[in-house]
Formats: sequence, C-alpha cells, structure tokens
Amino acid sequence: MEVYLDNGATTRPSEDVIEIMVKSMRENYGNPSSLHRKGVEIEKLIKKARRQVAKALGANEGEIYFTSGGTESNNLAVLGALEGNKRKGNHIITTKIEHPSVLNVFNVLEERGYEVSYLSVDRNGEINIDELKNVLRDETVLISMMYVNNEVGIIQPISEVTKIINSRKSKPLLHVDAIQAFGKIKLNVKKQNIDLMSISGHKIHGPKGIGALYVKKGIKIKSMIFGGNQELGLRSGTENVPGILGLGIAAEWVKKDFESNTKKMDELKIRLLTGIQNNLEQIKVNGDAGGGTAPHILNISFEGMRGEVLLHTLEQEGIYVSTGSACSSKKKAFSHVLKEMSLTEDQMEGAIRFSLSPHNTLEEIDYTIDKLKYIVEDLRKVIARR
Amino acid sequence: MEVYLDNGATTRPSEDVIEIMVKSMRENYGNPSSLHRKGVEIEKLIKKARRQVAKALGANEGEIYFTSGGTESNNLAVLGALEGNKRKGNHIITTKIEHPSVLNVFNVLEERGYEVSYLSVDRNGEINIDELKNVLRDETVLISMMYVNNEVGIIQPISEVTKIINSRKSKPLLHVDAIQAFGKIKLNVKKQNIDLMSISGHKIHGPKGIGALYVKKGIKIKSMIFGGNQELGLRSGTENVPGILGLGIAAEWVKKDFESNTKKMDELKIRLLTGIQNNLEQIKVNGDAGGGTAPHILNISFEGMRGEVLLHTLEQEGIYVSTGSACSSKKKAFSHVLKEMSLTEDQMEGAIRFSLSPHNTLEEIDYTIDKLKYIVEDLRKVIARR
Repeated sequence: MEVYLDNGATTRPSEDVIEIMVKSMRENYGNPSSLHRKGVEIEKLIKKARRQVAKALGANEGEIYFTSGGTESNNLAVLGALEGNKRKGNHIITTKIEHPSVLNVFNVLEERGYEVSYLSVDRNGEINIDELKNVLRDETVLISMMYVNNEVGIIQPISEVTKIINSRKSKPLLHVDAIQAFGKIKLNVKKQNIDLMSISGHKIHGPKGIGALYVKKGIKIKSMIFGGNQELGLRSGTENVPGILGLGIAAEWVKKDFESNTKKMDELKIRLLTGIQNNLEQIKVNGDAGGGTAPHILNISFEGMRGEVLLHTLEQEGIYVSTGSACSSKKKAFSHVLKEMSLTEDQMEGAIRFSLSPHNTLEEIDYTIDKLKYIVEDLRKVIARR
Repeated sequence: MEVYLDNGATTRPSEDVIEIMVKSMRENYGNPSSLHRKGVEIEKLIKKARRQVAKALGANEGEIYFTSGGTESNNLAVLGALEGNKRKGNHIITTKIEHPSVLNVFNVLEERGYEVSYLSVDRNGEINIDELKNVLRDETVLISMMYVNNEVGIIQPISEVTKIINSRKSKPLLHVDAIQAFGKIKLNVKKQNIDLMSISGHKIHGPKGIGALYVKKGIKIKSMIFGGNQELGLRSGTENVPGILGLGIAAEWVKKDFESNTKKMDELKIRLLTGIQNNLEQIKVNGDAGGGTAPHILNISFEGMRGEVLLHTLEQEGIYVSTGSACSSKKKAFSHVLKEMSLTEDQMEGAIRFSLSPHNTLEEIDYTIDKLKYIVEDLRKVIARR
C-alpha cells in the first residue's frame, strides 16, 4: 500500500488540473499578449482562472495577481507593499514561526534598516495578542503573519489581529500567508479585512510553479520583477498559462468542495491522532490538536526516537511523511517553529509531520497506525538494547 | 489551413515535453526537498534536466539555475550580479533595443543611482563596437546585451564584445539575453567567455513558466527571491518540477537537432523573404536579412499599411503573425527597436514580424506568400480609393 501523508510539502495534481494544462499546451498555446485570436482566446481563459481564484478567496477579479508560486507571492507582498508605502514608516512586524519565504525577507529588510518585531508564540504555536498590541507603533507599516503554520498547523487569530489594526488610527497593512490555509480553513479577504494574501497552487492539488497574490484594491504595491508589464504591471513575464488555468481549476474545487473536504480531513486527522494515542506511549502532540489547528496537519513527537529514522522506516512500508516542512527538512538544525514552541531537544528530534489531503482514505490511516505501532515499538526496543 | 508564424512570441510545447510534464504530475509529484523517496527521485530528475540545459549551452551542470522564465532570468542576472558586485563600480552598459525585461531593469537602476550607457544601433539594429569601446570605463561593472533581437532578429557581435572585455584590465561582467538566440544560433558559454546567460522554455517548444540562468562558476550573484534556499540558495521556492523536466527535454532537442533545425528555418525564411520580394512592392526588410539575423525572424514593413490591419486580415486566413514583440504589441506606441533603427513612421506602422519554427513547412510558407500577395494588394487598393 502507498500512503502519501506529505500533502503539506506538496500534493499530487488532480486529473482535471492535468487535463486543462495539457489542453492549454496542445490547443491554447499562444501568448496572451499576442494581438491575434490565439492571444485573445487565452486572455479569456486567464480571466476565467482569475475569477475562480478570486471567488475562492472572496476577492474581486481585479485584485488577484498570478506569480510563480507561494514564495514569490510572500516576497512580493512584503517587499512590494513596503516599497509602495515607503514614507509611511519604518517598523514591521512578523512572527518567529513564519515560513522562510517571509522570515528570510524580514531578515533582509532588517539589514536594509527596517525595525522588525518578531512575535513569539506559546507552546501551541499561537501568538499572544497582547504582545502584538504592545509592539504596534504609529510607524508600523506592515504585519505579515501566516494563517496556518506549515509544520504544526496552528491557526493564528487573524480576526483578532484585524480587530486591533482597525482600532488604531494609523493602520498597518496586513499580509496573510495563506499557503497552508487555503482549502483548509474558511478564507474571505473582504469579510476578514485582509490587505494582502498569498496562496500557492501545488498545496491544493494544483500545479507547481504557480501562485497568486491578493492585493486589496487601493493598496499601493510595487513590482519586484520588471519587463513587459503583464499582470497589470505588477508581475512581468509571459504568463504561465497552463499553470494559471490549473490553479483556477484547483481553486474552484477548493471552494466547491470546501465543506466535504474539511470534514473528510478532520475525520482522517482524528482517526490518526486517536489511533496513535491509543496505541503508543511517550508521544507529544505539537500544537493544539483540536479546533486550533488546521484539519490537514498533525505534528507528533515520538520521544526518544530520531524523526529521520522513523521517516525512512515508514517509507519502507510505503508511508510518506515529513520531519518538518519540506523546505527545512534537509537542514540539520532543529525546526525554528518547534524551538519557538519550547519543545525539548528530544521532542524536536522525534517530531513527525503527517499532512493530509481529502484524497486520503480511512483505510490508509488505519494502515499507517498499524505500521507505526510496530515500527515505533521495534525501534524503541533497539534503542533500549543499546 | 492554420499557419502559426508567431514563434517568437511563444511556441507550442512538443509532445515529448507535454509527456514528461504529465508523467511528473501523475507519478513524480513529490517535493524535491522531501527526505523520502518521492523527494529523492525528483531530485535525480531535476539533476538530469539541469545537465540537459547545461550541455545545450556548453556550461557545467552546477552553473545552471532554474527560474520562472526569461524575464526573471534577465532580472536576476542584472540585479543579482550588481548586488553581488556592489563595490566594483557604478557604471553599467546595455543597448537601446533590449527586451523590456532588461531595459526596464536598467531604468530602475538608473533611478537607484547607477550610471547607464545605452548603446545605439545602426539601421540594421547592430551595435557599434567603437561606441562600446568609448563608453567603457574602469568602473563599468556589467554589460547586458541580447544576442538576437526579438523583433528584428539581428545578431549582436558578442564575440567582438568579449574580445574588448578581455583586452581590459578591469573586466565588466557580460550578461547575454539569449532568449531568442537559444536553438537559433550556436551558443557555447565557455568558448564564448560569457558570464551570465538567460534562456526561456516557451520559446523552444518547452513549457511556459520556466527559464534558466547560466552563471559562470565564481561569479558573485545575490538572490532576488528569498525563502527555502532552493537552487543552491539563488532562487527560493518549491521547484516547478514539470516545467524543469519539460525544459530539459526541449533543451536536449535544441542541441540534438540544431543543424537540421536551423537549416530548416533558414530555408523557410529565404522562401518567405523571396516570395514576398518577388510578389510585392513597397516593402522594407528590417534588419539585415542575410547572415546577420537569426534564422527564425523576418521583420518586414509593408509601406502605406497599418500592421495591425494586416495582422487581423491574415488571421482571417488562419495565419498568425505579430506586429512587434508580443510584450509590446498591445501598446499603442511604436516599437522602440524600430525607432532606434531609424525607420520612418510609415515603416514602423506597417511592420510585421514573421517568426518561424522548424515545425513550420514550406507549404505553409507558400500559402502565406499567396495570401499576403492578395491581402496586401487589396488593402492597398482600398487605401488608394480613400
């Protein structure tokens, strides 16, 4: 049996996504900027995809900009919005558990002279709203915060954040990295009063190499990549048409099947969690596993074990998991997220992220629990004998 | 009959490109950063694609970095290399007929305080080597020049440029935008002593949304996009695996069939040119149509006509051409390239770019000549009656 539980790293594109991409490569292969029919046709298709993404986020069509992926969206949101609002202040806020595509941008900005407040998180990975209140200043231009953490799934209290922003005279912009949230928790940029939001195609059974950035109408934002002024001048470069159309299809699915998808993932996650809790000892669930985390991520520390060893042993049984985020898994260092959540070294060492998709089945979960039970017990025996 | 002669704008992905992309989405859909087999497998495939691209450019594998396309490659080459060589000087050189993805970057750099020399071109679109000699200074850090112009196909004397660079004590870096040159003229970064070179997937029957940048070993270059440090830290973001593999296949084809492909395009171009010259009057070939231009581009001014009208009339007959580059075709302004080549307004107004692929046929060319003849004569009669 093959059980892919690394959907937080990337997902398998759905067949209808592949289909529209192939059709676009075979039939609608023109350049949207071309004046002839082959260009015009594709412009219409792109418009449709933009509408599909906008609808899924509760945005207007004209507020969606396609990028090469989540990392570019995050970079563009932060760097572009700051460049567009240069005179408004010099202070920016983020959290200590952001994805590197935000955190590394903030590090660069700090080098460039910005003052940065990095919010700490509690043992569940949640920020402290009072800390946010305390660090906010009149010169704060931007807050960038992920909605759902990629390693532990914790959901940040974005609505409380926007409430605080709205209570202030000088309102900083709010960028929400929703790459892990899209399709997993309800998003509505209008109702939630969000200024900028990043999403990615390949986390929602869409294509790799495509993402989008929502920019609320009226927000000033500058380009990071210069050229032919595609995407209303914000993102130059010939449009990745197959990617854009694939993202449109994936976004439509996310919206249409939201209730059943999240219900399914909830069910799978509870089954997996309960199975592990009932069958294994010395485990620690990282991040509140209840309603405070997204339905697709379950991060568990198997104490006394090395996560990497567990990962490779599970792999022998056809089960694919992660020790942290895909991006950081190759680094030898401990996860910065788990560190900020005050895990012990032992707990960080033994952390495994299971990340689900609505396409996983209960059967796969039961198989995983079964294998996990024997593998963990066996490995612990080996360790005990040493 | 459908005759696609807008291959300079974009090409139709070949079936083997589509095939490897589909396979990668269905079977090898993992994240290359994942520690398990699904990650490791893909890393190997990416390595192969990198080798394919490297080979086609005469580079080493470790010198190829994948990007989201030609525009990003050009931006990264110029901005990244300058950031990496900040202390070496403040003067940069480019030409007046670059693609917007270089020209607009230079405009931004000028605003940021760089001194820029924009080289002029002659009536064929070729730079003047003496002008280059004259503007070069000890503080010149970078020269960025396209190998083949996208609108008229002129080939710049890159080997003479590198000769001049090498004769100097303080050598500026040379970035070559080879997006229109790749697959059309012989490229070998080592033999030609080129420091940075940009290519794009969708101009060579590869995928959209993917490109590469060659960076000679030892050249200091800084990132433009920050995050998980993929592509040896130069370009963060989950790899666009299907795009990368597709580009690999396309690059391999470019190398393998180079002789027959260029011979074919030469033949098609001469047939088209001769056909137009023999059948129509008041035409002007823009850019030396002989050995000085690339085999895939033929830019012709039909005097007394509006290019856009001609384009749409040809479209009625299933023939797809361009009035300029795809990127600039939607702007009402005249082409900056043709302007720099000292064309009259009438000649700029009536300019049409035919851009070929080895997949075009002689039959298609004959059909085009035939239709052109009647269309141009008819339109001219209508204009004369006004």
